Amino acid sequence: MEQQQLANAIRMLSIDAVQKANSGHPGAPLGMADMATVVWREFLKHNPADPGWINRDRFVLSNGHSSMLLYSLLHMTGYDVSIDDVKNFRQLHSKTPGHPEYGYTPGVETTSGPLGQGIANAVGMALAEKSLAAQFNRESLPVIDHFTYVVMGDGCLMEGISHEACSLAGTLKLGKLIALWDDNNISIDGHVDGWFSDDTPARFRAYGWHVIDNVDGHDSRQVAAALTQARSEQQKPTLICCKTTIGFGSPNKANSHDSHGSALGEDEVALVRETLGWPHAAFDIPADIYTHWDARAQGAAVQEQWQRLFDRYQARYPVEAAELLRRSEKKLPADWPERSQAYIRQLQDNPANLATRQASQKALNQFIQWIPELLGGSADLSPSNLTRHSAARDITPNDASGNYISYGVREFGMSAIMNGLALHGGFIPYGGTFLMFMEYARNAVRMAALMKIRTIFVYTHDSIGLGEDGPTHQPVEQLAALRLTPNMETWRGCDQVEAAVSWQQAIEREQGPSALIFTRQPLEQQPRSPRQLDDIAKGGYVLRDCDGAPELIIISSGSEMELAMYAAEELTQAGNRIRVVSMPCVERFEQQSAAWRESVLPWAVRKRLVIEASIDAYWRGYAGLDGKVLGMSSFGESAPASVLFRHFGFSKEHALTAARSLLA
Amino acid sequence: MEQQQLANAIRMLSIDAVQKANSGHPGAPLGMADMATVVWREFLKHNPADPGWINRDRFVLSNGHSSMLLYSLLHMTGYDVSIDDVKNFRQLHSKTPGHPEYGYTPGVETTSGPLGQGIANAVGMALAEKSLAAQFNRESLPVIDHFTYVVMGDGCLMEGISHEACSLAGTLKLGKLIALWDDNNISIDGHVDGWFSDDTPARFRAYGWHVIDNVDGHDSRQVAAALTQARSEQQKPTLICCKTTIGFGSPNKANSHDSHGSALGEDEVALVRETLGWPHAAFDIPADIYTHWDARAQGAAVQEQWQRLFDRYQARYPVEAAELLRRSEKKLPADWPERSQAYIRQLQDNPANLATRQASQKALNQFIQWIPELLGGSADLSPSNLTRHSAARDITPNDASGNYISYGVREFGMSAIMNGLALHGGFIPYGGTFLMFMEYARNAVRMAALMKIRTIFVYTHDSIGLGEDGPTHQPVEQLAALRLTPNMETWRGCDQVEAAVSWQQAIEREQGPSALIFTRQPLEQQPRSPRQLDDIAKGGYVLRDCDGAPELIIISSGSEMELAMYAAEELTQAGNRIRVVSMPCVERFEQQSAAWRESVLPWAVRKRLVIEASIDAYWRGYAGLDGKVLGMSSFGESAPASVLFRHFGFSKEHALTAARSLLA
Repeated sequence: MEQQQLANAIRMLSIDAVQKANSGHPGAPLGMADMATVVWREFLKHNPADPGWINRDRFVLSNGHSSMLLYSLLHMTGYDVSIDDVKNFRQLHSKTPGHPEYGYTPGVETTSGPLGQGIANAVGMALAEKSLAAQFNRESLPVIDHFTYVVMGDGCLMEGISHEACSLAGTLKLGKLIALWDDNNISIDGHVDGWFSDDTPARFRAYGWHVIDNVDGHDSRQVAAALTQARSEQQKPTLICCKTTIGFGSPNKANSHDSHGSALGEDEVALVRETLGWPHAAFDIPADIYTHWDARAQGAAVQEQWQRLFDRYQARYPVEAAELLRRSEKKLPADWPERSQAYIRQLQDNPANLATRQASQKALNQFIQWIPELLGGSADLSPSNLTRHSAARDITPNDASGNYISYGVREFGMSAIMNGLALHGGFIPYGGTFLMFMEYARNAVRMAALMKIRTIFVYTHDSIGLGEDGPTHQPVEQLAALRLTPNMETWRGCDQVEAAVSWQQAIEREQGPSALIFTRQPLEQQPRSPRQLDDIAKGGYVLRDCDGAPELIIISSGSEMELAMYAAEELTQAGNRIRVVSMPCVERFEQQSAAWRESVLPWAVRKRLVIEASIDAYWRGYAGLDGKVLGMSSFGESAPASVLFRHFGFSKEHALTAARSLLA
Repeated sequence: MEQQQLANAIRMLSIDAVQKANSGHPGAPLGMADMATVVWREFLKHNPADPGWINRDRFVLSNGHSSMLLYSLLHMTGYDVSIDDVKNFRQLHSKTPGHPEYGYTPGVETTSGPLGQGIANAVGMALAEKSLAAQFNRESLPVIDHFTYVVMGDGCLMEGISHEACSLAGTLKLGKLIALWDDNNISIDGHVDGWFSDDTPARFRAYGWHVIDNVDGHDSRQVAAALTQARSEQQKPTLICCKTTIGFGSPNKANSHDSHGSALGEDEVALVRETLGWPHAAFDIPADIYTHWDARAQGAAVQEQWQRLFDRYQARYPVEAAELLRRSEKKLPADWPERSQAYIRQLQDNPANLATRQASQKALNQFIQWIPELLGGSADLSPSNLTRHSAARDITPNDASGNYISYGVREFGMSAIMNGLALHGGFIPYGGTFLMFMEYARNAVRMAALMKIRTIFVYTHDSIGLGEDGPTHQPVEQLAALRLTPNMETWRGCDQVEAAVSWQQAIEREQGPSALIFTRQPLEQQPRSPRQLDDIAKGGYVLRDCDGAPELIIISSGSEMELAMYAAEELTQAGNRIRVVSMPCVERFEQQSAAWRESVLPWAVRKRLVIEASIDAYWRGYAGLDGKVLGMSSFGESAPASVLFRHFGFSKEHALTAARSLLA
């Protein structure tokens, strides 16, 4: 069997599926089929029957629009992706959505499509491998030992995140990361020369990468030789520059962006068939080609071989083996619920007025003792974010066994790398920056929510309370942006207790990311009954109540809770019935039963005041047409925090006046 | 007068101001004072008396936290920044906020602080210079001919946006861009070796830059020689790598991140005074040092010289001169209001069912004839965004006289470069990408709003209507994020008419950016009276009304308007009183008088249905506690658009059912 025919099977499956959907990207699969065939048939260590095997090689398609390439590979090698699945390309609820979607398809390691993030995820996976290996492997028992392959296009390389992630990969010497650049010189606007003239090999050498240049991406032997060379370089990540022709095999659309983003058309597909010498009908793959592609036997054998290694490891290091399995299965230690709850109770019983960023660090100092898979870091703001706990040990190029990563000033890279760490398994990654600079990383945060993975985003300096650094650094609308993101949970605790609960809940949340929002400035601790303490985890609860039906409900979070409580106290003294609702996590509250929500915020109570130093419009749904929001309606300013809070109306007096005006 | 003493004046002013504020960043001004002194005293062409002179050199402080360096320079050279202003560093409403804020301080060219964006703004300014020069200069009359200087730190270089912007600057051969890298090897987490080991000179050479390496940033002659060499290189942008010591002059904090982000303390400031041999009290600058720094006479002379050149130009090319002045003053052509309104009327009178991205292109084809300063582009999605109009001419490395930029796959870079173009003057920049990838550029969009500049962001493929590409590409919460940004105006027109109005309004909006949201799929044109046509610009208006007070108001925008109109028609037939409100721009609507808003959405009408294929929670404030939102509450899926609209409840039947349920 010629390698070419095997690659052509991938080509034809891909373009036939695109044609059937009459939607998709045929050019990239046609161009990359040869190189992908070499990777998947000659190098990739994987077992189609067990896509979750922890020591498999990872394969990431960073240019996710070439999804059909990946689906064809998964189908041909024997994953649970049938020919009917392939025929259902881009149809609702199929296993073969328009871009690879993590969780939809066995063998898809990450959701890709938003360019540049796949390579950053792959950096995270390679880092996870290196760190997990450093923590768990023992002399001649390398239970974690795999490569991470990633394919990327010109688009990925133009995106800034490729700079952030690849620069850090070079610094951290991720020698088992192998990137293949699909160098076809085409992007959607045409030949890239007019807007992309980097000397990419030189750029990557500047990052400390091992670069293999001038590989003909259609010559299997050249690709194989490059991959062999890449694998032998253990210190540096490798970039293999594969010159390819987009739309390879298409007589009229090859080497043109016309082949990029829409079906070739029936006629052109027929011409490709002819050009490639592929006499078979659409979706009709000859049995012998299936046989050559089938990776199941070899996959079972290689995993079995690893299992024997692991058994020896387990026999000799039972504690480590159990721990590795626990972490890989994303299970928390059995005693976590009790321990964490005891810690939170103890905080409630020992009040302290801390900035919630300090409360966060305090909680981390404790939780890291119990959850060693917490892998922390910060985008160069450790002393400000206070993400560095007392047991922090740096991950360095030569010792990856630590638990803390200095990501540098790379918010987007950090966030997508964290997603890669979470996807790889074995770690619960968290990383900090100022809440404002969530925006630099915004789409990676969304991707974590979309992928339903446990990435923990720590955002400090959460409002105008940041003070003198001014409006470029003061979040206003950022909280709303997070809260409006599907499957995100955004916690903004009002004291050290709620801050600790937010960590607890984020750690326990398997099916999605959390954003933990902390203040720069100290906050008063609030009193709570044991019942109220338990209610924090519901996201919204009554922190202070009145006898009988409330006349007015004040809803607040974080640093503004003190104002809410003050206004409630004053008005209660004056004979009013006031309820204060603490809303540390709106999204969590909205997942509660209708009964719970009604018990906290009775529909009939229309006098509602929301106090939060963030954009007011977000809260109008809670205030209703008869209520009021004491929030921000403009950008901040540069001044000391106390001056700003007064200036923007967040004073006790103003809160009281606003509440009174509703009662009048 | 020794150069050193002049630099020390900058140093001491800076650290004394930080000390007085007890907040700020002393380390960078101490480290960069020498190089900044050379730039400002020996090279920068500027006139402190006229910070708006169009042919001044631009100076951008990309590492904006060193703001006091810039304020000291502005004060010393004679800008309207007094010693009292300096003493008011970081106080509310001062001219000297924590980070440089455009519009607050004469001589501040851009707001900087969010790292990496300053260099990208500078790329935009250099591009504006090159393009304006290409359009307006005539033989031996170079009326536009200036340099753009930018200083940046390690943080800027780690950020991905530096890759995007500098890569494009190399491709476009922005030879008059000169960047000085403050290479002090320190970032907030400490010495950068552990997280930033790029060979930066090699990286920039890979971008096609001219790199001058190994300059001692404290040696004035070396810095001056490098600048001279940089100016003589006209084809390539130049990077000058200046080795400096952060906190230079501070015995205990130099070369440490301890000098970075907080005041040095009275004792250490005293020690710096001693070390630098600066016997003067805080804020007390000797007169002779002021004299040496004063740039007013030279500035007036250099501008006067240019004015004579411009006078000759004006005499010979009166039309071009008038046009250059008009564009520089950000005035639109006098006949614009009438012409654009006539165009819009004509659209209303000649109905067509177009995708609004097509309507956008149609409007552009017309408006470019009247507004030649529109400088378009796309982040590699021109054929999808339809941002390329019929008169588009590419800006190329060797001919910058065109009006269209292929930005490549660089959303963040594009957006910050557009901000630089707008800041420079002479252009109204617009650029396109998919609405989803606004997120890659999100903080630059916010910066445009914060700076109150006219940048036009074109975002197409605005909902699940994008179809098969799936949830990674389908906006859900992005519209809300834009609308919640202070000083943003987000337009989502429901047909070709509203789409054209959105362009008209964005072009006319001098004091802030606009986001123009367009569909991939065709939309029906709506009928309007002349009065209604005028009302579109109010952001929200009654598109269909009933006799008497409405029982139910349906609020909608964009592609969902057809559903709203259908439900209204059906219910009207059934005898109900239904009003439909078109809300193409919520932010604009909210700026209208209370009377207008009440006339459109009477407070007493509580039966309200909002229909929009974006995140539902955003609209709850309009729906109120008694209303309903037919929106998205999850991510999208990959499937044909029509399937998705039905799947997520955006069908005529479902809209009608929802409306009926409120009437029941």
